[in-house]
Amino acid sequence: MKKIVSIAAALLLTIGAFAQQALWGGSKIVSPQINDDNSVTFRLRAPKAVKVEVTGDFLPTQKIDTPFGQFDGPGFAELVEKDGVWEYTTAPLAPELYSYSFVVDGLMVRDPSNVYMIRDIASVTNVFIIGGGRADLYKVQDVPHGSVSRVWYDSPALKMQRRLTVYTPAGYEQNKSKKYPVFYLLHGAGGDEEAWIALGRMSQILDNLIAQGKAEPMIVVMTNGNAGEQAAAGESVEGFERIPSMQQRGMMDGAFELSFPDVMKYVESNYRVYKDKKHRAIAGLSMGGYHSCHISRYYPDKFDYIGLFSAAIMPDKNATCPVYQNVEDQLDVQFAKKPALYWIAIGNTDFLFQANVDYRKMLDEKGYEYKYYETGEGHIWKNWRIYLTEFVPKLFK
Amino acid sequence: MKKIVSIAAALLLTIGAFAQQALWGGSKIVSPQINDDNSVTFRLRAPKAVKVEVTGDFLPTQKIDTPFGQFDGPGFAELVEKDGVWEYTTAPLAPELYSYSFVVDGLMVRDPSNVYMIRDIASVTNVFIIGGGRADLYKVQDVPHGSVSRVWYDSPALKMQRRLTVYTPAGYEQNKSKKYPVFYLLHGAGGDEEAWIALGRMSQILDNLIAQGKAEPMIVVMTNGNAGEQAAAGESVEGFERIPSMQQRGMMDGAFELSFPDVMKYVESNYRVYKDKKHRAIAGLSMGGYHSCHISRYYPDKFDYIGLFSAAIMPDKNATCPVYQNVEDQLDVQFAKKPALYWIAIGNTDFLFQANVDYRKMLDEKGYEYKYYETGEGHIWKNWRIYLTEFVPKLFK
Repeated sequence: MKKIVSIAAALLLTIGAFAQQALWGGSKIVSPQINDDNSVTFRLRAPKAVKVEVTGDFLPTQKIDTPFGQFDGPGFAELVEKDGVWEYTTAPLAPELYSYSFVVDGLMVRDPSNVYMIRDIASVTNVFIIGGGRADLYKVQDVPHGSVSRVWYDSPALKMQRRLTVYTPAGYEQNKSKKYPVFYLLHGAGGDEEAWIALGRMSQILDNLIAQGKAEPMIVVMTNGNAGEQAAAGESVEGFERIPSMQQRGMMDGAFELSFPDVMKYVESNYRVYKDKKHRAIAGLSMGGYHSCHISRYYPDKFDYIGLFSAAIMPDKNATCPVYQNVEDQLDVQFAKKPALYWIAIGNTDFLFQANVDYRKMLDEKGYEYKYYETGEGHIWKNWRIYLTEFVPKLFK
Repeated sequence: MKKIVSIAAALLLTIGAFAQQALWGGSKIVSPQINDDNSVTFRLRAPKAVKVEVTGDFLPTQKIDTPFGQFDGPGFAELVEKDGVWEYTTAPLAPELYSYSFVVDGLMVRDPSNVYMIRDIASVTNVFIIGGGRADLYKVQDVPHGSVSRVWYDSPALKMQRRLTVYTPAGYEQNKSKKYPVFYLLHGAGGDEEAWIALGRMSQILDNLIAQGKAEPMIVVMTNGNAGEQAAAGESVEGFERIPSMQQRGMMDGAFELSFPDVMKYVESNYRVYKDKKHRAIAGLSMGGYHSCHISRYYPDKFDYIGLFSAAIMPDKNATCPVYQNVEDQLDVQFAKKPALYWIAIGNTDFLFQANVDYRKMLDEKGYEYKYYETGEGHIWKNWRIYLTEFVPKLFK
């Protein structure tokens, strides 16, 4: 035991002052603390601060002015100081995965007592989960777990090696003669092949739905939908000097759709999968819904299950890529082949809500079959996690 | 383009104020900025702050008082304010992966302009890399990349499903008839199956050494060496409510060594690997060096390549686990079988330096063959990355 303590001490000191507060320092600060009634207490030791606030998606929204107009953003609550430690307790919160940051005298900072953070584009925030109800699907439960792999595939169409995230369900390694269906799951603008794993809680949702018998065991493939990028921020040759932003290379110019057969070829050459339409699904959020719409239309024999989550729909009128020509004719072809499921989901305050109303109106007029799922709120991960939990049980049945 | 911008704006606003500064806000803050002479400029917008410092492992060390005595820790440098933006430029830095944090009026905070952070036990710090020399091995280069998978294996010995990180080299998926050697790479106290991937830069180092022809293509298996834990912080059923610390369950009580055949069984059942001694290596840092020492001794027919990086060596005198009985007799057996490489590396200011001197003296007295590699400095990731780059080219040749 003495030896363990001395190793602990020494390891600590290699990281020196960094770790001091978190590992040993004085009275331990616990933050966030989830209380029995699902209220949450935040704490921050900041004896010299004048004003400390917490901001997060569990607080009432407030209007924010931006170069693009006024939008809803997360609200702020003030912490109260006692003996140098600031504290705030929320009202009881509904089950959900929440994000938050502190604001100390105007400077946005992460909670030093909470190592759990998730990057969303260029922002890193702390996270916590209030369990119960649907949010129990977002937690790691005591069930068999799938594998999550970061692999590289060759894309001749894009002339580069590119990174993919692949989920294989529990049992894939053991059941060596079993074949699986494949679900291609695409991210939104500013995202990458890490997005559905991080804020999307994809692997937990699939593990849990499969363990409950509510979803078929399936392989889930998460691409990088920015056709000009090799990989997520920090994972390409640009390294840590790349500053992530909303503006990625090759987002909605058709190049990603044209290169999609390269992804399918890699998956179907390297995994034990069925290679027919009825064992393939594609869905995505926002820009990924746009990609799913156009990929499934452009390759009408490939996907039997299509999901548009808060999707951008129609290409720019001046788009020249062959993928975006003859859209309506190709939709005719796609729907004549009667996909098993064409599923549209959106929140009723989403800035893309009206575009989705218009698209559904067009589908209705043509008599195309689809299912529609509407939630409250807007263009947020809370909705995309909900849509994933609703969509996946409908696949391959 | 209008559509892309509107999606960008809306996505931004779902994360609202969080993202505002990083994505759009006023004049953009670039931090850290690596200058042509390899000096680094740090910047932080904090108009209300009175004092802003940066602390990191590129600054001269300073003495830190702890409950375990006085140790060296990273130093501090003050930033200078102009128009609300604080700034500091280092001297030119040697090639290396560096960690840092800001200290704003006594509060340690992460750099809001840098999304790249790595968790080390309970501390999260920003990171950057100065390229050149050996540090080029730590960067993602334009070479074929291996896959990195998080998988779960069954450990009957520990009565739980446990998480592993597995690196398979570039070409593994394509060369379906080729078999590979296996290198088991173990973490230190407070670490887990993520440690070598994060601060260890294991996948970059292997990708680069293999591409340069300096290392054999091999599978690298990174276990969780805390026998009482299923998985890294945040990846087990304890979820985000687990507070990581140096004190993990089942660190050096022999249970991990006794359960090691469960890991090997999983790997040898699920990957295309050779299953003989000359195609197996084991190495680890600190506690992982201790585990490597005792696993390779307790199973003397299993590993031909053994690496002790800044290793803890001898078990507690009162240890009762069968693994720790008859240590010297078993070392006799292990060395009589002449391992291809028994490699000991340590820094000359490491708190375990004398323990390693004593161990080598014992090996010398017995006439056992080993190789020794000494560096400056102590118990730090800089050394462990160096040892990995030195050890891997010696394997399986």
